[in-house]
Amino acid sequence: MTDAGLDAILACDFATVYYLAGRVFDGFVYIPADADPVWFVKRPVHLAGDRVCHIRKPEDIPSALEELGAGLPARLGLEMDLCSYSLVERLKGAFPGAEALNASPALRAARSVKTEEELAQVRLSGAKHVGVYSRIPSLYTTGMTDYELQIAIEYLSRKEGCLGQFRISGSSMELFMGNVICGESADAPSPYDFAMGGKGMDPSLPVGASGEEIRPGCTVMVDVNGNFTGYMTDMTRVYSLGTLPKIALDAHQCSVDIHVEFRRLAVAGASAKALYEMARGMAAERGFEKYFMGHRQQAGFVGHGVGIEINESPVLAPRSRDILEEGNVVALEPKFVIPGVGAVGIENTYIIHSDRAECVTDAPEDIIPLD
Amino acid sequence: MTDAGLDAILACDFATVYYLAGRVFDGFVYIPADADPVWFVKRPVHLAGDRVCHIRKPEDIPSALEELGAGLPARLGLEMDLCSYSLVERLKGAFPGAEALNASPALRAARSVKTEEELAQVRLSGAKHVGVYSRIPSLYTTGMTDYELQIAIEYLSRKEGCLGQFRISGSSMELFMGNVICGESADAPSPYDFAMGGKGMDPSLPVGASGEEIRPGCTVMVDVNGNFTGYMTDMTRVYSLGTLPKIALDAHQCSVDIHVEFRRLAVAGASAKALYEMARGMAAERGFEKYFMGHRQQAGFVGHGVGIEINESPVLAPRSRDILEEGNVVALEPKFVIPGVGAVGIENTYIIHSDRAECVTDAPEDIIPLD
Repeated sequence: MTDAGLDAILACDFATVYYLAGRVFDGFVYIPADADPVWFVKRPVHLAGDRVCHIRKPEDIPSALEELGAGLPARLGLEMDLCSYSLVERLKGAFPGAEALNASPALRAARSVKTEEELAQVRLSGAKHVGVYSRIPSLYTTGMTDYELQIAIEYLSRKEGCLGQFRISGSSMELFMGNVICGESADAPSPYDFAMGGKGMDPSLPVGASGEEIRPGCTVMVDVNGNFTGYMTDMTRVYSLGTLPKIALDAHQCSVDIHVEFRRLAVAGASAKALYEMARGMAAERGFEKYFMGHRQQAGFVGHGVGIEINESPVLAPRSRDILEEGNVVALEPKFVIPGVGAVGIENTYIIHSDRAECVTDAPEDIIPLD
Repeated sequence: MTDAGLDAILACDFATVYYLAGRVFDGFVYIPADADPVWFVKRPVHLAGDRVCHIRKPEDIPSALEELGAGLPARLGLEMDLCSYSLVERLKGAFPGAEALNASPALRAARSVKTEEELAQVRLSGAKHVGVYSRIPSLYTTGMTDYELQIAIEYLSRKEGCLGQFRISGSSMELFMGNVICGESADAPSPYDFAMGGKGMDPSLPVGASGEEIRPGCTVMVDVNGNFTGYMTDMTRVYSLGTLPKIALDAHQCSVDIHVEFRRLAVAGASAKALYEMARGMAAERGFEKYFMGHRQQAGFVGHGVGIEINESPVLAPRSRDILEEGNVVALEPKFVIPGVGAVGIENTYIIHSDRAECVTDAPEDIIPLD
């Protein structure tokens, strides 16, 4: 906050509140640079505590601060990248003496370096995530469609304690529980900011399974929700029926090899852009550049931070200026779409340390037969 | 738009784009008051058509408009209630010659009067929604927890084609697929703007089932996702084990009777506030006021519009100025929380006509035994 020139931050996005308060409430978390936080709560009405003030509307906050003996901030950080224009204008109006600045970059940077407690939650989600995926072949029955497999995986995940909620920062994506993408559906260009999306079952939600029967010679890419603790892991594995063409096997191996390089290179101090270039370079060396991160439409990243939300910092992309730090949690997902076959490649979630990248979704990485 | 003094609207929220374009894409729908709409598309890159322009960033839009021979608007409507402050500031910067106004009220008003095609989608969702609920007793097994029942209902819904996605306008709520609330969990005050939420399984998502075994003498309130077509219906029914105390049965009957009155009164021209007062008044007459819409925390509404999103106009609340119109779709949910027993009451979705309210979630309204 001090680096960002802020005297205080006033945050209200649910994910931010959960991060700052350890629980979700409707209201605002107020963090002065030089005093303890205050929770301004609208709902639930019974929330009580030392630094909890109940309010009906944001305009109540300045007088509540004065009653607490706190001064009003000269430079107030607001979540300008997340809160609506109308809300930010309203908050600015409630603090007419303050200069309003954007606190979203500072919050995003803080969220990208996880505490030990947060990392424990990530590891726990990862363990459960791996457990669910290990049972996917047992769900398959002959003649199943990608949709039938997707919803069977969803039910298994929920039985294992998946919270279902898939928190996404901002407005670049919509998703329900994840994607199971089979064959040509992998080449359906998605409107969303995913590595790849799938056709979906309805124009109102063009993502995920499309209702096609899973056939021999196609791949089934599974990338479903790993939110078991409020902190999610992101994981993708590939399954198949029958024999796949060599090009698909080789592209999948390329992805696995990119992960091996990543484990070596992705330590504190590494450049996110350089890691993107490493992955893209390995794909190009082996002749897979035109299938890298999609075919008809290629996604412009190969990895991203995860935590409370699926799309956090750092981002592994061609113009990224991010430098990896200890405590970053990064999902790496070098994927390829092979026309006529489907998507291949794996995704793991890693915790970044000073000397290594720790994989928290440690599971077999080959293409797994469904039959 | 003309009433609102707008020369054009530039919209990008996914639900708004789906409404205006019949499909989802990443980009902007531009609607001039006196010409055909233009779609400015970022993703998917292959979207093609007469009035489709591909852009990389919003700053490309003005020059693209000039290439199309369209003038630039003097008064430009932006989605100020939905888009982030940062994005709105960026769009204002892209149209320096325009006065930027809030288009959200006009869009919300337009969405609240459904076309015949939209109503057909609503009726289809309602029919499927009713079908799922009719099978809920068959899912129950002795010793089941509310969570086990909730996820079994989710899986059944998905098998019947529920899209899963639960679109919520704005930032007042978070939900995954819906709520199954049993016994005392109904009295857990929620941070969200729901009639009632349930304790949930984790502090990161305080809503829904809490993992308690369903016991005799308690009610199980089921309020789960009715999005089968991109247009959702909202429906709640109550189930029970064993015998319930008379107060719960009487409160449930009060809810059923409120619906009977509503079917008579909720026609085009009716006042939303008066309908709220009717419901609250009937609850008070029978001595249920302190259980109305919650007990430890009471929700300040008894009904709301539904469509692409769960929280549309009109709103049936004490300070609402909405007047019902033909083509409104309204969910009415007079509910009561009886301490020690749980939640009772029903919710239906209605299409408002000139002379009647048409129930699209027509299903038995008594409390249904699980055993």
